This record gives sequence, structure tokens and C-alpha cells, in this order.
Amino acid sequence: MSLGHFNITTTTPRDLVDITREVEHAVRNASVSAGVMYLFNPHTTAGLTINEGADPDVRRDIIKGLTHIVPENLGYRHAEGNSAAHIMTLLTGSSLTVFIEKGKLLLGTWQKIFFCEYDGPRTRTVHWKILADPQ
Amino acid sequence: MSLGHFNITTTTPRDLVDITREVEHAVRNASVSAGVMYLFNPHTTAGLTINEGADPDVRRDIIKGLTHIVPENLGYRHAEGNSAAHIMTLLTGSSLTVFIEKGKLLLGTWQKIFFCEYDGPRTRTVHWKILADPQ
Amino acid sequence: MSLGHFNITTTTPRDLVDITREVEHAVRNASVSAGVMYLFNPHTTAGLTINEGADPDVRRDIIKGLTHIVPENLGYRHAEGNSAAHIMTLLTGSSLTVFIEKGKLLLGTWQKIFFCEYDGPRTRTVHWKILADPQ
Repeated sequence: MSLGHFNITTTTPRDLVDITREVEHAVRNASVSAGVMYLFNPHTTAGLTINEGADPDVRRDIIKGLTHIVPENLGYRHAEGNSAAHIMTLLTGSSLTVFIEKGKLLLGTWQKIFFCEYDGPRTRTVHWKILADPQ
Repeated sequence: MSLGHFNITTTTPRDLVDITREVEHAVRNASVSAGVMYLFNPHTTAGLTINEGADPDVRRDIIKGLTHIVPENLGYRHAEGNSAAHIMTLLTGSSLTVFIEKGKLLLGTWQKIFFCEYDGPRTRTVHWKILADPQ
Repeated sequence: MSLGHFNITTTTPRDLVDITREVEHAVRNASVSAGVMYLFNPHTTAGLTINEGADPDVRRDIIKGLTHIVPENLGYRHAEGNSAAHIMTLLTGSSLTVFIEKGKLLLGTWQKIFFCEYDGPRTRTVHWKILADPQ
């Protein structure tokens, strides 16, 4: 079992940040040819997801959609004023499971891994753990 | 560790397709009596979920609800015109983790496993991996 | 591999119930110093999520937001009348993966684990499984 974390710095209030390169870097360093990788986001106003990475408009449309779906103001009581971000976190989820085959992430043709910032900009952390297949 | 995949062909633009039988088939073939099973969807306009399988109206109501929640048009920029499907994918998630006990999936009384098609009809793939409990 | 379950009794139709203490109890009893823990919800009108636990207003705001996002009535066909709860289950997800380090859950500063009741009050079950890191 290998484990570690990496940090990213988000630059806007809401953004889907492609972290596939950071994740692939961890896979290569772990020198695991086949296994399962878990990613965990320790923040409560951010999430992790897998979606299309080829066209940056998809990321923008997703943020646009979420901002439309989750009301910014709804008579929320949480004093920090970021309840919409907490709701987006529930909708997105805090962890991911991906497969490793032949030393690489098993992702679909268009899939990339994204850190979802819903209350930025901030410096954020992603924890990961790799479980190699039993020999 | 056993791994594999199966294909399904969806027949409508949006649908929840019960894939429990295909998943159970993989479990039986793996001959694992206890363990953890991971399912992974490699597509960016589809998801995986667990929900009620007894009444087909639940599946229809879920699609109806998602279609209401996620606007089809919102000044999206992605040229393919399927941004709503990408947003539904984020809301649903791309992977599942289920337990195997006594050679069978540990599911609740009403639970079935569904492939969520949001931009069909298409032929789709589901990857799976089974990790047997250490002896 | 350790496995088990615990029950909780919800007291209102919709609620986020902090189950971190129950989960930590399972971790301590398993005497695992490092590993991965999976939580699985066997119900189709409930979910599992990780979010802020410090301010109880966050939980209330999340329920308020979900109740706004998912229409209670939309010409649903499911005769039980709880289709909104089934949709919230899809949006939330049925399982969680968390890391165990030094005998404790690896959670962010503000994170707690919640059982999401969407059709209560009921007595509910959460299954868990702990996979210790290979020595």
C-alpha cells in the first residue's frame, strides 16, 4: 500500500481543476503495475469527479449548471455564507476509486480527473492511496 | 484480484438500466466468497448508481427528476450539445463499491445496480474488479 | 478484513445524522492501524456523505437546499409517493471510502460522516468493511 497527497492552488471561486497529471505522477512513483487507487478530498466545500477533459467548455458548463441548480441564497442559516458550496460538495462526492492497469490509470477516452473547487480560491489537498493487486 | 468488463446497449436517450444480473454473473464467475467489488464507468455522459429495482416507475421518476433539475439549455458553450448529460454524470458519480458475502452481492432488499444512460442510445462498457478478502 | 454493521434510528423525515462516532467505534474495535474503510448504505431512500460537522446549520441548510432542488411533486408515478427521496439518494450516493491512519479515520478538520435520511423516521443500517494495509 502506497499513500501520499498533493496540493493544488485554485484561482477562482468555482472551478473544475484537471488533476489527472498529479494523479498519474503518483501512480508512476508508486511503481504499481496493477491495483486500485483511492482519492480522498478532505475539504467540505470541494469535491472530486471524473468527466470530459478534452473541451474546457465542459468544465465551464458544469460550473454554470451547478450554480444554476444550487441556489446561492435560500434563507440559509450557516453564518459563513457558503452553504451552496456545502450542497455542491454533497452532490459531487468526496472520494474516487480508479483502476490501475499496466502501470497506468484505466480511464475512458475522454475522462480526466477533476478537483471541484466550490469556495475558492484556496490551497487544497488531495490524499491518495494505492492498493497493489495481490501477486 | 479478478477483473473484467461487460457491455450493455442502451435504447433511449436517458435511462436507468438494471445491470444487477451482469454484475452477479461476474461475481459468480470470480468464485470469490467474500470481498469487495468495484464498478467503474469509463464514459463522461453516463453514471452508476444503486436504487430501488422493484418498481420500474422509480427509474422513470428519477430520470424525470434529473431532467427537471438539470436544464437542457442554459447558454452552454460545449458544441456537442450534451452538457446536461455531463452535469448529470457529476451528480451521479462514475464508480460504485459493493460488498461480497457468501459468494453474493450484499445489497439491501430493494436495491439493484443501475447503469445511468444520459446521452444514448449507445453501446456502453462497465469495468469491474473484485478484491477477495485476505485468507 | 473486518466487517460489521450498526443501526441508527432517525427521528424526522429528512435529516443528516452524524455517524462519525459509530464509525470511529468500528475502527477502534477492528484494531487496524492503517487501511481503507468502506461504508455501505443498503437503503434506497437514504445516502452517505461527508461534510462539515462543526455548525449544525450546515446540515439544515443542506436539507433545505436538497428539498428545494428536488421537486416533491412532478407528476411522479411511483405509488409510494417518495420519488423525491429516491432522487436524493442518487444525488448523494450509497457508499463511502475513507482512509485509516495511525488507528484513526483520516478526515479533514471540519469533516464528519453523515447518514442522510430522506424518507424517515426509520431504523436504518450501515454496513462497513475495513481492509488493513498489507504488512
